[in-house]
Amino acid sequence: MSKAFDNLKNALKKIPGMGTKSAERMASFLALENRSHARDVADAIISALERVTPCPKCFGLSEDGKLCNICSDASRSEKSICVVEKSSDIDAIEKSGAWTGKYHVLGGKLSPLRKIGPDKLNLEQLSERIESGCVEEIILALSNDIEGEATCHYIQERLVGTRAVKLTRIGFGLPSGSQLGFADAGTIKNAIDSRKTF
Amino acid sequence: MSKAFDNLKNALKKIPGMGTKSAERMASFLALENRSHARDVADAIISALERVTPCPKCFGLSEDGKLCNICSDASRSEKSICVVEKSSDIDAIEKSGAWTGKYHVLGGKLSPLRKIGPDKLNLEQLSERIESGCVEEIILALSNDIEGEATCHYIQERLVGTRAVKLTRIGFGLPSGSQLGFADAGTIKNAIDSRKTF
Repeated sequence: MSKAFDNLKNALKKIPGMGTKSAERMASFLALENRSHARDVADAIISALERVTPCPKCFGLSEDGKLCNICSDASRSEKSICVVEKSSDIDAIEKSGAWTGKYHVLGGKLSPLRKIGPDKLNLEQLSERIESGCVEEIILALSNDIEGEATCHYIQERLVGTRAVKLTRIGFGLPSGSQLGFADAGTIKNAIDSRKTF
Repeated sequence: MSKAFDNLKNALKKIPGMGTKSAERMASFLALENRSHARDVADAIISALERVTPCPKCFGLSEDGKLCNICSDASRSEKSICVVEKSSDIDAIEKSGAWTGKYHVLGGKLSPLRKIGPDKLNLEQLSERIESGCVEEIILALSNDIEGEATCHYIQERLVGTRAVKLTRIGFGLPSGSQLGFADAGTIKNAIDSRKTF
């Protein structure tokens, strides 16, 4: 029995997605099996705390309060903004190579149940970017669920309104490489609703 | 994009059992969502590194090089030693309240495939405890698998030998609260082999 070990276990257990067993296994690994790596993890956390800041423009990941490398990339069009929930969504879209414009991270989606109102999201800042006048297209890359839907409607009604901005939402349907037999009813409904002339 | 964030993600990914997605989610939580808890985690790791040490007698968890609280508990019999693989096994047995003797942590089990020989385990120290003369019973609480079996045989042949020590192995069979229909063939075989007069 060690108090320091129990403290570590409890601190790890408070991280979302960590169960009791995983926290125990991880604490064991860090405190007993690989002490030099444990030091690296602690250093990485502290350095991330000191350096990682949200980009002041798009709220994606950046460092030391500076613009992120996408916002400061002059070769990427300022005219198109892709709106996402989390900064990790930017990585996923960048990996696909399908977007060459800028981004805007909301920091979540509207959810009355979880008490997330418009003031908790970076909506005001999106509104400012739209009002600045150079934005021509906004693509909403939010979740395909009720909360994502509500957030899209909010942006359409309150932020874009009658402004001359083209507003789109990413397509929904059968995922790439998947078979119809494995798709759930909602996905099949989305896929049929968004059918295109072949 | 942030280098400090990527470093944190990569450091977390190297922890066994952490997938890319979990590491990403955890890095996000620590670096962006709950910075005060991230500081607690880093402090807990460093304090565990500074304080947690194996007990010099049983190799269970202890602090600052001292005997663990089980080894230093005079009310627990020195005559009976329960041999386990990992220090977390001690917690599991303690929770059951079924053991009032001492423990000995091997630090794993013999595994030729994973190149874990007798020299990698705390077997020499177990032998010394047996030779000290006050041990009367050893219960082997090792895994119910081939490697656990091999480790039991090694202890029986090399460590206990012809000494006047009662050597037992924990019982195997149907887990408490479970139904026969959900048990695998190996468990049912164990349960039938270890049947008792009712």
